Amino acid sequence: MPELRRDPIIGRWVIIATERGKIQSDFSKSEEVPPISISCPFCPGNENKTPSEILSFREPGTKRNETGWWVRVIPNKHPVLRVEGNLNRRGEGMFDFMDGIGAHEVVIETAKHNAAFSDLENKDVEEVIWAWRDRMLDLKKDVRFEYVLVFKNHGKDAGASLVHPHSQIIAMPTVPVRVKQELEGGRNYFEYKERCVFCDIIREEIEANLRIVSENEDFICITPFASRFPFELCILPKTHASVFEDLQKHEVTNLALILRDINGRMNRTLETPPYNFVIHNSPCKSGKLPYYHWHIEMTPRLTNAAGFEWGTGFYINPTSPEEAAKFLRETQ
Amino acid sequence: MPELRRDPIIGRWVIIATERGKIQSDFSKSEEVPPISISCPFCPGNENKTPSEILSFREPGTKRNETGWWVRVIPNKHPVLRVEGNLNRRGEGMFDFMDGIGAHEVVIETAKHNAAFSDLENKDVEEVIWAWRDRMLDLKKDVRFEYVLVFKNHGKDAGASLVHPHSQIIAMPTVPVRVKQELEGGRNYFEYKERCVFCDIIREEIEANLRIVSENEDFICITPFASRFPFELCILPKTHASVFEDLQKHEVTNLALILRDINGRMNRTLETPPYNFVIHNSPCKSGKLPYYHWHIEMTPRLTNAAGFEWGTGFYINPTSPEEAAKFLRETQ
Repeated sequence: MPELRRDPIIGRWVIIATERGKIQSDFSKSEEVPPISISCPFCPGNENKTPSEILSFREPGTKRNETGWWVRVIPNKHPVLRVEGNLNRRGEGMFDFMDGIGAHEVVIETAKHNAAFSDLENKDVEEVIWAWRDRMLDLKKDVRFEYVLVFKNHGKDAGASLVHPHSQIIAMPTVPVRVKQELEGGRNYFEYKERCVFCDIIREEIEANLRIVSENEDFICITPFASRFPFELCILPKTHASVFEDLQKHEVTNLALILRDINGRMNRTLETPPYNFVIHNSPCKSGKLPYYHWHIEMTPRLTNAAGFEWGTGFYINPTSPEEAAKFLRETQ
Repeated sequence: MPELRRDPIIGRWVIIATERGKIQSDFSKSEEVPPISISCPFCPGNENKTPSEILSFREPGTKRNETGWWVRVIPNKHPVLRVEGNLNRRGEGMFDFMDGIGAHEVVIETAKHNAAFSDLENKDVEEVIWAWRDRMLDLKKDVRFEYVLVFKNHGKDAGASLVHPHSQIIAMPTVPVRVKQELEGGRNYFEYKERCVFCDIIREEIEANLRIVSENEDFICITPFASRFPFELCILPKTHASVFEDLQKHEVTNLALILRDINGRMNRTLETPPYNFVIHNSPCKSGKLPYYHWHIEMTPRLTNAAGFEWGTGFYINPTSPEEAAKFLRETQ
């Protein structure tokens, strides 16, 4: 059973998940990635190599755990948290534990082994977004969970162990510290100004027009003013919204559009870099919030965070966000 | 001029230092490292390839910026912060800046190009500690600085650009967020219990005897209860002390002893891994604190922090600290 441990000084929770030590990777060096791989558990025809599917979008008449799907959600074979049981919060001397209860799922985003978001049709990416949303709605029903996190590690240097395009969902018994800080910052700002800080940033960014990478009717993508990493990106809905699942249909279309656009710009400018993204959404039980604004944080993995950063929480970024935005904006 | 920018939501300061883009690295793959390298700017004989020295411990009769030294402190050639000027705090719309004022120094720890701490004599490592202390004392006199950070990136994967053993010192105009959190956690605990949380942890760890890696008269090294990384380590003085510079002479001897011991254990158990360490000390202007306890955080770089961690502040550790401590304790 994975274990959650709380740092007795600063209160940070850490997952100790010892059973994940020996995960196989299928990355090989400098090889062309084929459109289908017979050894890939996420490729069509290999459905029996994965745990039984939780959700799939598939052609009418096809069966669960067989071919015919275009998006498929399965339990992670090496989960960092386990679904069964109770939290079992407890102390041991001055140390606090809880059991590693949660869900860990994998969203296989396409049947194509080698397709980036920018290679897919818009409707294909829309389907991935609908799958994220369906799983969020379902997982939020479980009262043990405080947060549902959707994230993606793409490429080995970004922490992925498999090449096949996939994102991950973790439902967890605690709100991640980074989201907590945003909630607190948003609340403080709202108390002072009675406005959403994210909405104010969007207005300010549109006016300054220095850090905008891409924009459509519903979404804007910027390089954040205090970017931690070179080419760090943030995608925000232009209209205030604290809950991802409240997306309307035209917003799903435009989110797919901007995700594909950004992915293409990143791949052209930075030579198809490994990257991570994470959806920052409101906690499960918070309802709609006037001071929080869901968004996607994305960053290509171009540098190694070194000793300075993990030891201090202080980031050194060698690329100005204005320069990064310019490069990405101007790429053909 | 490097620039500090404040995240408008959570208040995190980031250094934008664009001039550091093109730092040369002298790491090569899988080559034996020689005891001296003619191309290394930190090797004896190449003193003219570095900025003029700030401090050196050297043989009587030898001259500044010439051979004869055993520890040498120089300004970093690619500083992330600059010494000249004022902070110039300002806003631009809703965004906050200040100039990147600070000091960035390099401590060349030994004349030997390839010597790990564990290869050096105890008195050699003591000299490095005295150099850290002298620089801290000196930098703390500058009223513009709030914090003096000593850290070490060893090995390319830990962010070092040069092989030659060195640590770094950054004096900065703000207290790093990680230290702030510790100060706050320590203060809260003290208010509640009237005891130092770090002292309580030491007592608890000695009693439990599960996570002790090494110990001597003055220092203890543990794998922290909520370790973020496999084989993460923490070295603490056993007697309460909030200010590193207050080290007594016998404590310097014993700190060198435990640093060498830990370094040897890490190199034997984990095959000479890249590693980072950072000294967490009290802020410049706080004086002596009953609720803070200086310490060294050290971690070998065995895994890549992936999307999950940077996006959430939530760490997943595949190795239990008890197991890590056992391995390190039992190594021959």
